[in-house]
Amino acid sequence: MADRRAVGFGDPDGAPATDPPVAGVATSRQMLDDHAMAHLVPERSKRGHKGSFGKLLVVAGSLDYAGAAFLVCRAAGRAGAGLVTLAVPESLQPLFAAKVVEATTMALPEDDVEEVDPEPALAKILDHDHDALVIGPGLRPSLATADLLRLLLTTPDEPEEGWPEQPSEQAERERPRSVDASPVVLDAEALRTLASADAWWTRVGRRCVLTPHAGEFARLRAGSGHDPADDGDLNTDDDARARAAAAAAAEWKQVVVLKGARTVIADPDGRLAVAPFENPAMASGGTGDVLSGTIGALLAQGLDAFDAASLGVYLHGLAGDVVRDRIGDAGLLAGDLPDALPIGRRRLARLAERDRAGRRLGFGASREAGTADDEAGSTGADPGATTETGDQGGAS
Amino acid sequence: MADRRAVGFGDPDGAPATDPPVAGVATSRQMLDDHAMAHLVPERSKRGHKGSFGKLLVVAGSLDYAGAAFLVCRAAGRAGAGLVTLAVPESLQPLFAAKVVEATTMALPEDDVEEVDPEPALAKILDHDHDALVIGPGLRPSLATADLLRLLLTTPDEPEEGWPEQPSEQAERERPRSVDASPVVLDAEALRTLASADAWWTRVGRRCVLTPHAGEFARLRAGSGHDPADDGDLNTDDDARARAAAAAAAEWKQVVVLKGARTVIADPDGRLAVAPFENPAMASGGTGDVLSGTIGALLAQGLDAFDAASLGVYLHGLAGDVVRDRIGDAGLLAGDLPDALPIGRRRLARLAERDRAGRRLGFGASREAGTADDEAGSTGADPGATTETGDQGGAS
Amino acid sequence: MADRRAVGFGDPDGAPATDPPVAGVATSRQMLDDHAMAHLVPERSKRGHKGSFGKLLVVAGSLDYAGAAFLVCRAAGRAGAGLVTLAVPESLQPLFAAKVVEATTMALPEDDVEEVDPEPALAKILDHDHDALVIGPGLRPSLATADLLRLLLTTPDEPEEGWPEQPSEQAERERPRSVDASPVVLDAEALRTLASADAWWTRVGRRCVLTPHAGEFARLRAGSGHDPADDGDLNTDDDARARAAAAAAAEWKQVVVLKGARTVIADPDGRLAVAPFENPAMASGGTGDVLSGTIGALLAQGLDAFDAASLGVYLHGLAGDVVRDRIGDAGLLAGDLPDALPIGRRRLARLAERDRAGRRLGFGASREAGTADDEAGSTGADPGATTETGDQGGAS
Amino acid sequence: MADRRAVGFGDPDGAPATDPPVAGVATSRQMLDDHAMAHLVPERSKRGHKGSFGKLLVVAGSLDYAGAAFLVCRAAGRAGAGLVTLAVPESLQPLFAAKVVEATTMALPEDDVEEVDPEPALAKILDHDHDALVIGPGLRPSLATADLLRLLLTTPDEPEEGWPEQPSEQAERERPRSVDASPVVLDAEALRTLASADAWWTRVGRRCVLTPHAGEFARLRAGSGHDPADDGDLNTDDDARARAAAAAAAEWKQVVVLKGARTVIADPDGRLAVAPFENPAMASGGTGDVLSGTIGALLAQGLDAFDAASLGVYLHGLAGDVVRDRIGDAGLLAGDLPDALPIGRRRLARLAERDRAGRRLGFGASREAGTADDEAGSTGADPGATTETGDQGGAS
Repeated sequence: MADRRAVGFGDPDGAPATDPPVAGVATSRQMLDDHAMAHLVPERSKRGHKGSFGKLLVVAGSLDYAGAAFLVCRAAGRAGAGLVTLAVPESLQPLFAAKVVEATTMALPEDDVEEVDPEPALAKILDHDHDALVIGPGLRPSLATADLLRLLLTTPDEPEEGWPEQPSEQAERERPRSVDASPVVLDAEALRTLASADAWWTRVGRRCVLTPHAGEFARLRAGSGHDPADDGDLNTDDDARARAAAAAAAEWKQVVVLKGARTVIADPDGRLAVAPFENPAMASGGTGDVLSGTIGALLAQGLDAFDAASLGVYLHGLAGDVVRDRIGDAGLLAGDLPDALPIGRRRLARLAERDRAGRRLGFGASREAGTADDEAGSTGADPGATTETGDQGGAS
Repeated sequence: MADRRAVGFGDPDGAPATDPPVAGVATSRQMLDDHAMAHLVPERSKRGHKGSFGKLLVVAGSLDYAGAAFLVCRAAGRAGAGLVTLAVPESLQPLFAAKVVEATTMALPEDDVEEVDPEPALAKILDHDHDALVIGPGLRPSLATADLLRLLLTTPDEPEEGWPEQPSEQAERERPRSVDASPVVLDAEALRTLASADAWWTRVGRRCVLTPHAGEFARLRAGSGHDPADDGDLNTDDDARARAAAAAAAEWKQVVVLKGARTVIADPDGRLAVAPFENPAMASGGTGDVLSGTIGALLAQGLDAFDAASLGVYLHGLAGDVVRDRIGDAGLLAGDLPDALPIGRRRLARLAERDRAGRRLGFGASREAGTADDEAGSTGADPGATTETGDQGGAS
Repeated sequence: MADRRAVGFGDPDGAPATDPPVAGVATSRQMLDDHAMAHLVPERSKRGHKGSFGKLLVVAGSLDYAGAAFLVCRAAGRAGAGLVTLAVPESLQPLFAAKVVEATTMALPEDDVEEVDPEPALAKILDHDHDALVIGPGLRPSLATADLLRLLLTTPDEPEEGWPEQPSEQAERERPRSVDASPVVLDAEALRTLASADAWWTRVGRRCVLTPHAGEFARLRAGSGHDPADDGDLNTDDDARARAAAAAAAEWKQVVVLKGARTVIADPDGRLAVAPFENPAMASGGTGDVLSGTIGALLAQGLDAFDAASLGVYLHGLAGDVVRDRIGDAGLLAGDLPDALPIGRRRLARLAERDRAGRRLGFGASREAGTADDEAGSTGADPGATTETGDQGGAS
Repeated sequence: MADRRAVGFGDPDGAPATDPPVAGVATSRQMLDDHAMAHLVPERSKRGHKGSFGKLLVVAGSLDYAGAAFLVCRAAGRAGAGLVTLAVPESLQPLFAAKVVEATTMALPEDDVEEVDPEPALAKILDHDHDALVIGPGLRPSLATADLLRLLLTTPDEPEEGWPEQPSEQAERERPRSVDASPVVLDAEALRTLASADAWWTRVGRRCVLTPHAGEFARLRAGSGHDPADDGDLNTDDDARARAAAAAAAEWKQVVVLKGARTVIADPDGRLAVAPFENPAMASGGTGDVLSGTIGALLAQGLDAFDAASLGVYLHGLAGDVVRDRIGDAGLLAGDLPDALPIGRRRLARLAERDRAGRRLGFGASREAGTADDEAGSTGADPGATTETGDQGGAS
């Protein structure tokens, strides 16, 4: 488990700290930790049914990138979504139906092999009951994909043909965000599509979480008229990463997750969070798909976009640490991660319970830190074999 | 493991308790527990062969809901069925043949892609040797499916076209139930079909176990001419759930399993059982498919419908507790459950053995409760890694 | 683990015992045990390569019974075969290629969908280098299958059309068995085919192991002109089972494995062995496929037919006990067995080493029994999690 | 774990030893061990992303040998490659897309079913960003495959039609090796193709690692105009194996891995290494595919061809020992190996860290040997269940 104390910026106890303004944007930068994240874990009603815990619709996967869709769905299930549906071009449905177990699949109409027909595909998606969407992992680049994405993001704003002209600053500020439209995670091919769309952020009618890695982020910035070089080194300079993510979130009016070592989460309202994880085992194909499924599941469970993104990044990072503790710095396969997700969630849920118990007894949350770290140490065990003893001790 | 002592109604030692009559139906309501369930576990002859332990035929699955069929079959195998056969529309057989291992598959004739041809499909099903049926999980909604279901349920009653007119009370009471026809679990799409069929319960020629969740139950009740609102809150009001299930079982003359937290099992003869499980981890897509496969396997092993339903619900709940003990309140995938089913069965089988030994020595069953609970605690371990020591101690 | 001491017939230390002649056939009946089986385990040269350890060709599987072929192949690999090839009708190859990992697949020419063309299929099989064959599990019943089987069994005897007339006793006794033709395990559909072929045993040019369960055996006996009723109760009467298997082996001049609780293995030379296993968990679809793969792998490793059948039955039984110790009397899936096969093999290999060491030191094998049983107890652990300590102690 | 001390040649502490010249080639022969291999493990930057750790392109698999491609890809991921892409003939892509999870797939254009069209296939491969290639495991023998291989190996040397005439010694020595072309592992069908190509080694424009077993090696030698009989017994005579591999590497100007017990790795510059492993469990179909994927992943991570081959052979051997410790001398399936690869890598990485720490404190590497062997003993545990404690003790 990475030593998160040695990080050197942010408050190790997780209390939000106000950074000096960066690039003209006032932000409160928070280093994510167990205590900050514990209170975000959605409580799970004993009488809940599968509908209570969120329905996620996933638009992902292609013949070239079939595993991506599988990873999103499995991660979403392990992150607690009640129901997960995978929408794929009709001709690929048999392939994906053979690959998933708990997720259901849905055929999107095509006008050519593996090429969705955007309008009827949109209709089918909107007709399917869902609380959140994940769009992009492993999608095949094509005009049809781009059209479907545009329709999905601008609906219910009745978009005209093409991405619209950039509206005036005034119009943009007054643009109503549709409160009915379900929130959406945008990843991979969806991000590449946005990067080449003019001023996409001025017409998006949904709350989005964008999850670019440094390369995708640079393309998006370039598409917004910024020279990526001005953003600095987005792979290794943590301050540059924070500044750039904050600026992008402010401009795009969406939550931005800039992935990599020490992933940054930025909200358009100026909130800024940094995850403590630096795990080279995670630098492996498909780990991003697991992240988008995790965030999507949390959105479907009702979390706010910034909270879903923060907790999703944190649970994903904990899962990576669990696997690294087991196999080392190299050789992690993305498919290892979903099964490790519940370990972190349970740990945080227990911590939240103790914090509540502690507060009832008049103790502050910080009294619990030692206990939490002890438990963190024990998560190195094989998730399959771990049997943690109950927490009878509570806050005492 | 849920603390079943704290339940507060029903006898914690499992003895049936007679409730005051509810809604005019005299019922004996029983809270299921280890002791009550232990004696239902079918003994397993040392000389039995795969035919001895029941042949289950499963009509389930579609392209959209492929995993459902897989889950039913795997659960049935883990619940002890000797042979499991999955019947699917001919065009889907290759998909399902690739998905299962121990189950065999059977092609149902189609008159269109993924659309069964009801009459020849019926003939093929009846021609295939089986002791019980599961119908419905993941089936594709269609007129053909509805027709096939109608034919299956009314055979060997030589049904005419369409669901028949409601017969007189007198005729209904005297309607002979075919003793030859194998019993059937009706779930999911089968229940939705019944909900829109007129007075289906007056002509069904088989012993059925219906396994609706609250939403499916409400539709079935509406289809029987009741205002679901009169049944009260079927998600959270345990008394309302018991009353409604009992009334429905009495009207439909079939065993009704009203799923959810504290699942209710009602028999038309007035018996009523409640399972103690409230496990939010189970509120996840596909867990119902595992239940119908479990009940189907127990029917195939020769249990009476009410017993199969009760024990099936109980084993399913124990399996859920085993998984929750391992991963927590969220992130369970339905595919985790089948492998955990044998753990509960073995625990109950051992308890039954001790009870028998205890009785031989002059002790009552209640002496064993402490031991049983101790063992319950130990089932929290990974099923794959659990090695329980033998029971040399017996009842001493 | 079954208590094999309590069996009450046969020598518990594994020494062959001569039974009184049964039904006119002088037989030496042996209860299989660890010591008897240990010395059959083929030693594994440190410098061997995959060709050294046997090439097995499997003709199995169909759309209805796809899992059977998978189970045969996986069992064969776990039983130590160096290379396993699965031959299937051409149109099914993609399905099976997706299902297996270590086994390779081979397309058999068809003259209709899923219907092999016998002559070219035979040519392709004979052209493929192999040391042993398994034929039958999950094969689709058809004339073409029957033809292919006939061609395979009678080659290289240049068969004429149809199964030949019964030859004279004299001609039969003098019929040379082709020493070049590789031995073959006949199971399931292959047995059903033989049951309706006239005097098939008079023209078979290969050494065979037939693995019928009681029902298949009865059909074979009927096909040989015997009234199955004369054989007695083949499910529960151990003496009747032994007598019938011995008689059949003598008549058919092939090794007969009469499956079930206490499986009997009979050689045409009068040797008769009985396995001690009575495990109701094994009465589950697909366990027979695992057995035929296991025996096939041992034939490919060079064991004599009777030895391969005996050791195969024994390893299969040990694997079943390992799984039963883990999950109990019900709920075993056949797919659990292959991974448990190496546990038993290793245990026997170690015992053989100790016996050899003991003999060098002047002790008899019986000194080791206690140690072997202790180790048997420890195999109840999860095969995946078992780490047995080394045997540094040797025979001391 | 094999006792590598008993080997009797080479320095057990891993220091390279200069052998007397064999067959006129001066070689330094090294017995590989933990210390020698530890310093080859590529360090893993905490800030690396998936692109940092190498992109591997795999040209492998066919309908007959589908599992081979799966094994190469999975091994490559477990050996630390950041991204793995599997290129297959277009008509087979759906099959392989269903089989892999983390690897992506790529369709190679065909001019007949399962028959690649060499020129456009080459173009597509070269267009796909990659750091190393694996070519050959499970490829279908065909002229098209041979053509594609020839194009790939001679590019960017602008090959004319056919393999060229043997050039003069002089021309050969001066032939520039393209520094841009990514290195390639050649296995199985690729080796069989080379064996029938005239003087292929005179025109290959890439750094290659050839991984023949003794049979493939003999064919390659015959194709180079040598009588394989002159090479001696390549299965059992270690000196003959070393001599022949060294001679072949010198002639072909490529790294040669002569597989088998005590695998030999020879570099054209005269370096010669021998792996200590003699594990009969590894003599099983598909283990070679795991090796080529492992070496390919290390090439992609930037190791020199000889180092990648040596470390790949060593990690593969350690993984085999881990599995053998768990299941014994027989019954290993190649699919067991990839998940065991990270165990050895982590062990070596820790040893390298201690060596570095030891040197800082003034101790030599040999002080660490005892510790390393202790840890080796512990790798016998199930990789899934192993939880090694941290190395707080460091070099002290």
